[in-house]
Amino acid sequence: MIHFADKLTNRISDLGNPTVVGLDPRLKQIPEFIIDDAINEFGETFEAAAHAIIEFNKGIIDAISDIVPAVKPQIAFYECYGHHGLRAYEETVEYAQEKGMLVIGDAKRNDIGSTAKAYAEGHLGLVDLFGEPTPSINADALTVTPYLGTDGIAPFTKVCKEHGKGIFVLVRTSNPSSDEIQSQPLGDHLMDEHVAGLVEGWGRDLIGDSGYSSVGAVVGATYPEEARVLRNVMPNQIFLVPGYGAQGGGAEDTKPCFHKNGTGAIVNSSRGIIFAYEKAGQPSEAYAEAARDAANAMKEDLSRLF
Amino acid sequence: MIHFADKLTNRISDLGNPTVVGLDPRLKQIPEFIIDDAINEFGETFEAAAHAIIEFNKGIIDAISDIVPAVKPQIAFYECYGHHGLRAYEETVEYAQEKGMLVIGDAKRNDIGSTAKAYAEGHLGLVDLFGEPTPSINADALTVTPYLGTDGIAPFTKVCKEHGKGIFVLVRTSNPSSDEIQSQPLGDHLMDEHVAGLVEGWGRDLIGDSGYSSVGAVVGATYPEEARVLRNVMPNQIFLVPGYGAQGGGAEDTKPCFHKNGTGAIVNSSRGIIFAYEKAGQPSEAYAEAARDAANAMKEDLSRLF
Repeated sequence: MIHFADKLTNRISDLGNPTVVGLDPRLKQIPEFIIDDAINEFGETFEAAAHAIIEFNKGIIDAISDIVPAVKPQIAFYECYGHHGLRAYEETVEYAQEKGMLVIGDAKRNDIGSTAKAYAEGHLGLVDLFGEPTPSINADALTVTPYLGTDGIAPFTKVCKEHGKGIFVLVRTSNPSSDEIQSQPLGDHLMDEHVAGLVEGWGRDLIGDSGYSSVGAVVGATYPEEARVLRNVMPNQIFLVPGYGAQGGGAEDTKPCFHKNGTGAIVNSSRGIIFAYEKAGQPSEAYAEAARDAANAMKEDLSRLF
Repeated sequence: MIHFADKLTNRISDLGNPTVVGLDPRLKQIPEFIIDDAINEFGETFEAAAHAIIEFNKGIIDAISDIVPAVKPQIAFYECYGHHGLRAYEETVEYAQEKGMLVIGDAKRNDIGSTAKAYAEGHLGLVDLFGEPTPSINADALTVTPYLGTDGIAPFTKVCKEHGKGIFVLVRTSNPSSDEIQSQPLGDHLMDEHVAGLVEGWGRDLIGDSGYSSVGAVVGATYPEEARVLRNVMPNQIFLVPGYGAQGGGAEDTKPCFHKNGTGAIVNSSRGIIFAYEKAGQPSEAYAEAARDAANAMKEDLSRLF
């Protein structure tokens, strides 16, 4: 069984590109020609929404799969269309994997142990289908929230170990109000540093040949000073770094998330890549090429760091 | 617009029963005659799993809707079967509402603001479907996780205000390792008390005629001492109380979650009700009656408190 951490670090190294593209398909920003096709076929229905999302994502994936190691579909933008949306999510996961990409499901799931087990099996492992262990959503990794402590995480690490999958635990999120809980002082350190210590422990049994653990951490590019501290607390964690681009973080802000040799982090951009055609003032028919150009520009931007 | 908090307190008062039944349909425990019917019709497929779940839930809902104010489907046990499972979740929400029950979606969702908006609209409000605001999953309330602070919660409270919906924010969870984060000391108080203060603030604009806010709190029955403190910090919050029954909490343990007049909390039982036929040694054909008996016994058990 190859550790997820090794698959990811290998793919990053092969492509020379420590980035992940967030697939957050807001219907309003999907090009009109895709929307029109979907409505022509299915009417103004949830099926049409799902169809448009899949077509849009396939275009993005086709355009970037040879230069970007992974995609990160944000499940909220699928789930909001109910089961039709979740079907689009599943098809996106499958299509990206067929094209050789790793898929990090951004779901921020969390619950008590017996329930976390259902999430872990459904998103990453095998579910018991009338006695037959069967893959369901089958992403390569999943983001999870640490608020419930070890027994909400253990079912995920078990599945990671059995199936070569990974998790990224929220440690320091990129949003403005993350300090309300994550920066609260516990004696001489902050809550997110305490959580980082837990994450480091949860990941110890899942360290691959790369030296990295399949239990990674989400650390926002918007708090570079804090990232520096967290990098020390979690030497073996791969940092999944949101906040670059649309959320205001620049390449320099992501630097503390990496080790000095330029490994150990993967930087996400969502809107800045998939809807690049809008910002570039290009026709919507060129959305996939615009995404490829933006992905190349991001790779170039980050390559200057090391 | 009637506040969710008022709908819930009225329904609890009308039925004289501050309980909610958790619909956590583990396939292995669903009676054989339901499973057989589903497999006969759909084969050993995800469709069959979804079908069995819906049939099972309808039986439970029919048996309890006149004595229990609300159900709480745990979405993990649906989502694990992918989009077929989510369809079963949607049908369960709709069926319970048709039978006059309130539905608290147990999803523990959380994300940054723009993403939380998609969750809030999808689960509780209206989604923009090609320019037309359209209901999607449309539950009455949703559980959410506070780790990202105010801007991950604000999109939910906005939807709650606009559509008479509610949220329950995780404050103190019922699981053994909840202390790893929630009991960490911040000076003279614990992290969960800090979170409780945030929740109280988030709920201030959503207080109904009942005096309760549509922003409630999840507080486990397994930590009665801490519940006492949290009750003081959050006087206007309805406590959603897991941990009774299968998780080890008794009626007496839930008492600190209520105000002295017996209002302000709703106690959940899942496995202890829906799979009561197993424990009672009854034939699986009687699962719905066994659930009704168990629901009545739970009501009776809690009625002795006040």
